[in-house]
Amino acid sequence: MNTPTKFVLDESKMPRDWYNIMADLPVPLAPPLHPGTLQPIGPDDLAPLFPMELIMQEVSAERTVPIPEPVREVFRLWRPAPLYRAHRLEKALGTPAKIYYKYEGVSPAGSHKPNTAVPQAWYNAQAGIKRLSTETGAGQWGSSLAFAGALFGIEVTVYQVRVSYDQKPYRRALMETYGAKCLPSPSDTTNCGRAILAANPDHPGSLGIAISEAVEVAASHDDTKYALGSVLNHVLMHQTIIGQEAMLQLEMAGDDPDVIVGCTGGGSNFAGICFPFIGQQLRGGGRTKQRRIVAVEPSACPSLTRGKFAYDFGDTGHLTPLTKMHTLGSTFTPPGFHAGGLRYHGMAPLVSHLKDLGLIEATAYPQTACFEAGVLFARAEGIVPAPEANHAVKGAIVEALRCKAEGRSEVILFNLCGHGHFDMSAYANYAAGKLVDQAYDENELAMALAGLPSVPA
Amino acid sequence: MNTPTKFVLDESKMPRDWYNIMADLPVPLAPPLHPGTLQPIGPDDLAPLFPMELIMQEVSAERTVPIPEPVREVFRLWRPAPLYRAHRLEKALGTPAKIYYKYEGVSPAGSHKPNTAVPQAWYNAQAGIKRLSTETGAGQWGSSLAFAGALFGIEVTVYQVRVSYDQKPYRRALMETYGAKCLPSPSDTTNCGRAILAANPDHPGSLGIAISEAVEVAASHDDTKYALGSVLNHVLMHQTIIGQEAMLQLEMAGDDPDVIVGCTGGGSNFAGICFPFIGQQLRGGGRTKQRRIVAVEPSACPSLTRGKFAYDFGDTGHLTPLTKMHTLGSTFTPPGFHAGGLRYHGMAPLVSHLKDLGLIEATAYPQTACFEAGVLFARAEGIVPAPEANHAVKGAIVEALRCKAEGRSEVILFNLCGHGHFDMSAYANYAAGKLVDQAYDENELAMALAGLPSVPA
Repeated sequence: MNTPTKFVLDESKMPRDWYNIMADLPVPLAPPLHPGTLQPIGPDDLAPLFPMELIMQEVSAERTVPIPEPVREVFRLWRPAPLYRAHRLEKALGTPAKIYYKYEGVSPAGSHKPNTAVPQAWYNAQAGIKRLSTETGAGQWGSSLAFAGALFGIEVTVYQVRVSYDQKPYRRALMETYGAKCLPSPSDTTNCGRAILAANPDHPGSLGIAISEAVEVAASHDDTKYALGSVLNHVLMHQTIIGQEAMLQLEMAGDDPDVIVGCTGGGSNFAGICFPFIGQQLRGGGRTKQRRIVAVEPSACPSLTRGKFAYDFGDTGHLTPLTKMHTLGSTFTPPGFHAGGLRYHGMAPLVSHLKDLGLIEATAYPQTACFEAGVLFARAEGIVPAPEANHAVKGAIVEALRCKAEGRSEVILFNLCGHGHFDMSAYANYAAGKLVDQAYDENELAMALAGLPSVPA
Repeated sequence: MNTPTKFVLDESKMPRDWYNIMADLPVPLAPPLHPGTLQPIGPDDLAPLFPMELIMQEVSAERTVPIPEPVREVFRLWRPAPLYRAHRLEKALGTPAKIYYKYEGVSPAGSHKPNTAVPQAWYNAQAGIKRLSTETGAGQWGSSLAFAGALFGIEVTVYQVRVSYDQKPYRRALMETYGAKCLPSPSDTTNCGRAILAANPDHPGSLGIAISEAVEVAASHDDTKYALGSVLNHVLMHQTIIGQEAMLQLEMAGDDPDVIVGCTGGGSNFAGICFPFIGQQLRGGGRTKQRRIVAVEPSACPSLTRGKFAYDFGDTGHLTPLTKMHTLGSTFTPPGFHAGGLRYHGMAPLVSHLKDLGLIEATAYPQTACFEAGVLFARAEGIVPAPEANHAVKGAIVEALRCKAEGRSEVILFNLCGHGHFDMSAYANYAAGKLVDQAYDENELAMALAGLPSVPA
């Protein structure tokens, strides 16, 4: 087979701007609300948590925002990231579809997260901030911010969900190798953490609690700001470099996607691959190719497919603003499946908004089906995906098999957002038949949804 | 800083041939000897273990051997591999030296090993071989051959040193994800393994024993051949794609190395980075820039710096041919330090020969000094090296600090042969102060050297 399988973008073509989908939305996004007053918040309300440059990006309506040159310089360590044509996977599936995947596992942290960790660290460094606090589950985000902090001389404190801190010491070791401080959450370093430990000294922690701790630390220290790895508008915008590159690479390949697939936890890698394509459609009206955009989430944490589109808190301690999003309720605790990066009760407001507008579809699969897809992919293409990315692989395979059944040669693009080298224990469990599909508790979900904050219209 | 930090080679410039240093040696290599007769062996003696194409490469005196197109096609998944200028490390060290590193961690298995695993699997598949047997320690090689086997439909059986099999299940999970079968060695599937288990049912295993088992399986099954991840001439030749690419990339950078550094276990990644440069020197005589070539090995397994240049067996069971090499003796068991890829009693005959001819230097460092260097590198450059690669980082830093002391702006090139994402437990131990420098037993070394086979001149 002589067709090239990898499409390499020349460094000179690495995007110089992020794409801001806010400029092209047919209906504006609902504003975030203050957790106390329930009134729309302004930039100043966010100032204790973020440097002003990032706050202005959060609320910006400009279509493009320039990527600072020092940030692009760090990106050159691994960007432009490769786009591959999955010839071998197509053959293994016997599909007439063309499958392309963008691979973000080439970053030093092994996932797409440094695409936003680097600019966040840089803008904070420019604002004179000495320390960043953040939360992490399995550790993809924490290790990416630790990497970025090391490059710009910013101290990073990561609150890691205790159960992951205890069970998965490897990403913690990566954070510490980069010089970050990693604490198990709930911890005794915050009011929120102490209150939870007082009630239950053995509390396993949750992402919602870890966010509360990291936010509390940032809000109460002048030299410290907070950084979030997904959900927020500016974080999603930072990831659009993925889709912009993919668009140029597909031009090199002479193809245009019919279907774009990404996995969704908080929504950032999904937004990264698809927002530039959605924006093209929105600006082009009926003149541009109408593509299907498919978000794939875990059945055990199905915010887009089973959640409610409503105002909710981003954290358990209710310290964050309320945003309108697809949510399972901030008290909902997803079962402990392996795709830790997808275990969040909410969804990015921008992704939720697009779902509500009918511009994207959503589907959910259980983890064993996703691991099965990941192993098939690894044997065909040679790259072992992260458990999160396996959801995108599964979604792409479902589309490719539909094409086979329908005899259609569609072009499928998906985002392989990270490698699975830190997640081999999950693969070992899968191979040993020990991985089960954990259902969430329907009663707990009903209660969590019933407990959503009531917001005046 | 606006100087580019990454040098990307266009895919069209990926080397089309391997470089065979045998063609340029000023003194020919001593021949391998039959383990029974102690007479030089010919290609036919190797036929039970390897397909004829690889045997002909092993003994070839042709300067170049074409890389088959299907092999190059797989290489395109990650090659050409990037070359980086380590601006941030230079700054951290305050050195006037220019430091470049070639990064092989971008392969799907995370190291340079697929550079030879892919052609070995391909040549075997072409010869109609259904199964490959091999050995592995920590698992870098086993997982690379498993990856290559999956791509060409070859069944792979890996004998993994039992202590690693039990303690480090993650690379085993990677092998199994690629579809390979992984057995703890010593095992009850071979005569050699059964004999050792009969004497000691709890034997922790060793690389020498695992080689014996894999060789025995290949020698006793018609449809099975053996694959080795280092040491042999053809394996080292397959790695020369590294140095050839680096040479082109340094031309792009407008620099020519004064010092080239690589870590050495069996010798393959070191050969890969430096043989093309040494060949250039040998062919050019005094007309070419004379470079220093530095091999860095672990103090706890110092074959080049403390071993004897003599004929020895490659395995514990004495099933392999004898080769003339720097060896600590086939009964020598190195302490269990973390750079598992460097825990081998011998050294590639070609590397040993060049050392004996004075064409390369060798130096050894203890593991804590190497981890210290690796952490410094990670915080400056963003990439966490494998424990093996930390030895090359240490060697490069020593050269850079010498340049600082001497006020010289030399050009240093080193090979960063793999990432450390599978080795974070070692980093965690290092951070916790639990990593110690294990000395080998001087008496054991003396006995192992005294027990070297006696070979008639």
